[in-house]
Amino acid sequence: MKNATPIRIAMIGGGSWATALVKILSENNVTIRWWLRNEVDAAHIKRFNRNKSYLSDVQINPRKVKVTTKIREAIRDADYVILAVPAAFVSDALLGLTPAHFTGKLVVSAIKGMIPNINQLVTDWVEAKFAVPKDHISCIAGPCHAEEVALEKQSYLTIASTGAACAEAVSALLTCRFVKASPINDLYGVEYCAVMKNIIALACGITHGLGYGDNFQAVLVSNATQEIRRFVDTLFPVARDLSQSAYLGDLLVTCYSPFSRNRTFGNLIGRGYTIQSAQMEMNMIAEGYYAVRSIYAINEPHQVPMPIVSAVYRILYEGASPGAEMNALKREMR
Amino acid sequence: MKNATPIRIAMIGGGSWATALVKILSENNVTIRWWLRNEVDAAHIKRFNRNKSYLSDVQINPRKVKVTTKIREAIRDADYVILAVPAAFVSDALLGLTPAHFTGKLVVSAIKGMIPNINQLVTDWVEAKFAVPKDHISCIAGPCHAEEVALEKQSYLTIASTGAACAEAVSALLTCRFVKASPINDLYGVEYCAVMKNIIALACGITHGLGYGDNFQAVLVSNATQEIRRFVDTLFPVARDLSQSAYLGDLLVTCYSPFSRNRTFGNLIGRGYTIQSAQMEMNMIAEGYYAVRSIYAINEPHQVPMPIVSAVYRILYEGASPGAEMNALKREMR
Repeated sequence: MKNATPIRIAMIGGGSWATALVKILSENNVTIRWWLRNEVDAAHIKRFNRNKSYLSDVQINPRKVKVTTKIREAIRDADYVILAVPAAFVSDALLGLTPAHFTGKLVVSAIKGMIPNINQLVTDWVEAKFAVPKDHISCIAGPCHAEEVALEKQSYLTIASTGAACAEAVSALLTCRFVKASPINDLYGVEYCAVMKNIIALACGITHGLGYGDNFQAVLVSNATQEIRRFVDTLFPVARDLSQSAYLGDLLVTCYSPFSRNRTFGNLIGRGYTIQSAQMEMNMIAEGYYAVRSIYAINEPHQVPMPIVSAVYRILYEGASPGAEMNALKREMR
Repeated sequence: MKNATPIRIAMIGGGSWATALVKILSENNVTIRWWLRNEVDAAHIKRFNRNKSYLSDVQINPRKVKVTTKIREAIRDADYVILAVPAAFVSDALLGLTPAHFTGKLVVSAIKGMIPNINQLVTDWVEAKFAVPKDHISCIAGPCHAEEVALEKQSYLTIASTGAACAEAVSALLTCRFVKASPINDLYGVEYCAVMKNIIALACGITHGLGYGDNFQAVLVSNATQEIRRFVDTLFPVARDLSQSAYLGDLLVTCYSPFSRNRTFGNLIGRGYTIQSAQMEMNMIAEGYYAVRSIYAINEPHQVPMPIVSAVYRILYEGASPGAEMNALKREMR
């Protein structure tokens, strides 16, 4: 096996999750073309074998990883294309590419968000935009902080795809000494859950900022799992067990992490920051901020009761008072 | 309503949960006979209207609360008897009482554990020992830290009873400005879940002590919800939704609280303390320590697959290595 041809991977994105995935993949027999937009970061990795901007303790193996800032060079010979940029930037990152560039490749979304404005799941967008067959597309779900991957703490991933062979292949690729990846076929459920968890983490942050405690958060998260279930079971009614790690575990790691960007953003909102000042304070994008608008719009024709998502939407987009919204939610929950 | 006869309550126990419940109940139209074993604590409350040993910031209302160290005096005129001592001590606390003492009273268990050695749920024990009809017995489930009740942080309780009127009445009694209590009829499911959550929190502590991180804990808790479901659905197969606050919320608040005694105890075990030295270090009882032996014994004839409970049992009672057990569990989970 050691002498088998390495699997060729294009990694698209230069953030902490991309860096963590490069680390995981490098444990196996692969070569990685790693695309970063940022020229300075790319040059730094080439020279020092570290990404100075994210997870800078992670050592990059130069025999397996070649850095590039040219997207076509990154994906040209790839067997797998892994997308790990924020949802709002993926369209930009792949600008100029056509369906021909993706022929015969498996595409993996490591993005936990939706394409803004058109409110499309990333996997749907890839299928439509680049004519990649759906069963060649998969989505990586947690529960998995990039920071703990950097420390080689035992982690789990779930690889969702309607194509069983695709899910199996990507799972094998991402399983290593400290990561166990398992396939699942509920692509939509997993992908929507990954999007919605960021909204729930944002809600947890808001309540924390308002002074609510752990008792309240436990009830909020319990109610959230029911809200997520109502939504995905209405839109994509298949048999699924939302207590599996891909759904519940991913939600927990995001809601209970003090490092979660969405929770931090919500916390600032709860403490009275305006949206603009919260965004400036963080200097980062909280995916949940965009996700809530997409989910709210998608739910419009279905009218699934989603009190938590609706409250966050009204706070972020309709100028509603965080205190008043959470006060109303408090009475509704049990 | 203000002039209606106050409801008469006997509170049995002097710990933090008993103190928190006294605080909640005092918001409503009640009189409370509060039994504490400890004479010094009782005298202190009489004099200063505070429990110096637990939640000492909580002010006790002397017009509503009368302290006593005589169990018969406490329960004599009570409409409700609330048990809030550790499971291992409840038999001792009620020593000398007979079924006649309980005639016409509703009994509420605020205990999250089982009667040791005989492996009986507290509500079953009350029914058998004092001939209280089952539909006059209820059980209080969280998610609810006593510490946050002291701070009047919005909290939720679930009151489980096979008697609908009983669950409704106790819910009304425990609902106040900052607590919303809701009735549920799945007494066994809720009570077993409350017992098992302490074992899971203990497991979380062990993994934390061994150096596992948040990613692992999220997967552990997800797997635990499935394990709990297998167990309660096998023993008491009724339709239940384990994502409700009474089950999932209670589990979350216990597993994610840095104050949880069970998590702290587990953490010491994971770090290599012997059981004896961990117990001495804590100077407190971790209910999960006893609970795991009971659940393990109860499951013996059923043989429900319970890898987490079994691992904790082997570590605490069969001298198994925490590292080796968690290593095996790690491979089993997904």
